[in-house]
Amino acid sequence: MDSTIAEKMETIGRRARKASQALMGLSEEEKNQALKAMADELDNQREKIRKANELDVKDGRENGLSSAMIDRLILNDERIDAMIQGLHDIAALPDPIGKDLRTWDKENGLKLHKRAVPIGVIGMIYESRPNVTADAAALCLKASNAIILRGGSEALRSNQAIAEALNKGAKKAGLPEHALQLVPVRDRKAVQELIRMDRYVDVIIPRGGQGLIRAVAENATVPVLKHYEGICHIYVDADADHEKAWRIVENAKCQRPGVCNAVETLLVNKAIAPEWLPEMAEQLLKQKVELRGDEASRDYIKDVKPATEEDWSTEYLDLILSVKIVDGIKEAVEHINHYGSGHSDAIVSENSEQQDYFSRMVDSAAVYVNASTRFTDGAEFGMGAEIGISTDRLHARGPVGLEELTTYKYVITGNGQIRE
Amino acid sequence: MDSTIAEKMETIGRRARKASQALMGLSEEEKNQALKAMADELDNQREKIRKANELDVKDGRENGLSSAMIDRLILNDERIDAMIQGLHDIAALPDPIGKDLRTWDKENGLKLHKRAVPIGVIGMIYESRPNVTADAAALCLKASNAIILRGGSEALRSNQAIAEALNKGAKKAGLPEHALQLVPVRDRKAVQELIRMDRYVDVIIPRGGQGLIRAVAENATVPVLKHYEGICHIYVDADADHEKAWRIVENAKCQRPGVCNAVETLLVNKAIAPEWLPEMAEQLLKQKVELRGDEASRDYIKDVKPATEEDWSTEYLDLILSVKIVDGIKEAVEHINHYGSGHSDAIVSENSEQQDYFSRMVDSAAVYVNASTRFTDGAEFGMGAEIGISTDRLHARGPVGLEELTTYKYVITGNGQIRE
Repeated sequence: MDSTIAEKMETIGRRARKASQALMGLSEEEKNQALKAMADELDNQREKIRKANELDVKDGRENGLSSAMIDRLILNDERIDAMIQGLHDIAALPDPIGKDLRTWDKENGLKLHKRAVPIGVIGMIYESRPNVTADAAALCLKASNAIILRGGSEALRSNQAIAEALNKGAKKAGLPEHALQLVPVRDRKAVQELIRMDRYVDVIIPRGGQGLIRAVAENATVPVLKHYEGICHIYVDADADHEKAWRIVENAKCQRPGVCNAVETLLVNKAIAPEWLPEMAEQLLKQKVELRGDEASRDYIKDVKPATEEDWSTEYLDLILSVKIVDGIKEAVEHINHYGSGHSDAIVSENSEQQDYFSRMVDSAAVYVNASTRFTDGAEFGMGAEIGISTDRLHARGPVGLEELTTYKYVITGNGQIRE
Repeated sequence: MDSTIAEKMETIGRRARKASQALMGLSEEEKNQALKAMADELDNQREKIRKANELDVKDGRENGLSSAMIDRLILNDERIDAMIQGLHDIAALPDPIGKDLRTWDKENGLKLHKRAVPIGVIGMIYESRPNVTADAAALCLKASNAIILRGGSEALRSNQAIAEALNKGAKKAGLPEHALQLVPVRDRKAVQELIRMDRYVDVIIPRGGQGLIRAVAENATVPVLKHYEGICHIYVDADADHEKAWRIVENAKCQRPGVCNAVETLLVNKAIAPEWLPEMAEQLLKQKVELRGDEASRDYIKDVKPATEEDWSTEYLDLILSVKIVDGIKEAVEHINHYGSGHSDAIVSENSEQQDYFSRMVDSAAVYVNASTRFTDGAEFGMGAEIGISTDRLHARGPVGLEELTTYKYVITGNGQIRE
């Protein structure tokens, strides 16, 4: 390991830990003032940010980045405005820190408070989009966490310009020094250091492709909050309302196919398939959805590609849908728990027994009854904003908003109580 | 890696995952019946368990285990009774699964339920005490988790006899097969496999010495819920009630010095030290407590060993107490956040401003105001039973009881809602 990078990261970590302790003392008002000052500085330094971004984009083009990556990299006025608005939106959200999640009294007179507190230091590793620099920083700071940001190397100058503006605003507002730090090197060794700095970093949140997340999870000693793919299912039960089922499947597949909460596999009860599936297929084909069916389904939907074993565990992120006929709800649930990614799955059924069985037995972060899987989203859930959607099981599942960026401690108040 | 062990562990993992899915379908009554049947079988197989244990103890003596380890290993009738009682106690606790932690409605008519569900598969790695086999299994099963137990190799026969009895009872009561599995090999490679089986295991809980926990945390890819040492502090403020402070310090140090929530370091405000500290020292010396003081403290407590830098980060687990004079609360909090282990720390003060500052700024799982640190314990907190005390920050902090062995999912019920 390059000793200079190791030393740099050690310094960053030590400063973040120190900042996180100072952040515990801030009031809601102080944090909100800082977020607003940070928004103002983004606006003030708009030109500087755009110029830095132009250099990144120029290099990106020369280095042969794909047009999709270039598109994600570009910061225009609209995107800078969105970052500024994002900071104001987060300032307007309620402070998640310091509230009592539960209080209770013991017979000996002790009063226990289970109280929301910051996690401490959050390490954020992300790719391409420089706006994440502002969005992630604002969410973490609103929950009184110090943050270490490590963006994509292709966006380093953009991220530095944004981080400088944010830090200038933070300083003006009196936020503790080093509450927000951007890793200033492109070298990947910095990531290797960051994910093993247990002493200084409390959680790593990687955002980006599956490869990045897997590499981080495999090598980290710091806990990682993972955001894997969404292989989402809709099960259409024998007792489904036909119209609802058509509407929900179409929405979950077509409204925005490139996102993690779009549906990838349709499971249809054999009792409803003959009547319901052909019209569903017709609707989807009109929307240019490619269908891939198991053998049984191809009796009802003609001229479609057969689905292979691989299809059941593929997140298409595209207008493709795999279709399978199942004997009943048990087979549907087993399929989902086996091939799914524990993200979002739905049942369409008017039968409350089937609804209950599905809600209970499907082992996913979000389980829908008669609604589209597309609602799995921090804003739609009423969290205001999210830093991602966790497919992990511990600490946070589903959308990760301000509350999920906190932990708790017990504050126990007494009057001289001792243990007998 | 020995392929036979890898294969064995793979089979255990696959079976545990399957069992965990079946466990989601069990009712509270079914789980309680199983726990009671397991208790009955422990009673029925008492002789078998004791004989297996005698062999373990005999081998342990021949292999030169320390008398403390032998003591922990021994299963007498009293300890078997305690295991049986433990199973009944856990059966009597409320079911943590299926309850809605929060429900809310959205304007579009969606109803959201944040619902407590099992974590899934828990891997428990522990040393010596065979009673953990029954205690840990019962807690995990009550929260509808499958469990894989890996006890100390010196207790393998005892653990196998206990696990066989538990499984016989579980089978009689109709619990899903493989809900409880004991790793049947002594080879340490089994642990290396277990902590990297992400597909099958959702969390590892290591219980034992610091070395064991560090080795597991360093090498695991499965999330680890860690239980590190307790370096606990009491800060006696300028505005402390003298009597309360004496009583609390004495209790926290002397009542049971060998446990993690006993105090190790006493921080005394310089304003109260001259009057308060000499009498405190006298009380402690009467109780045979060895004091180790910083330079300033040795003005008030004569003939004590100087405290070294190492003392501040040592968990004595013994009748030893380090003492330091601080200028004020800020220095006390900084000392605690720097040298402490985030376990349990207390302030003794009648001043509400100092109390609030301490509660807010001390970054520990349990923060006490005018009470002994010895209360950090699942039973004392009202959780009924605990599997350990987490010094981690994510998912669970402090005592880990039934609720902490759950996670949550969102169940969203609608009436055909789609995303616009």
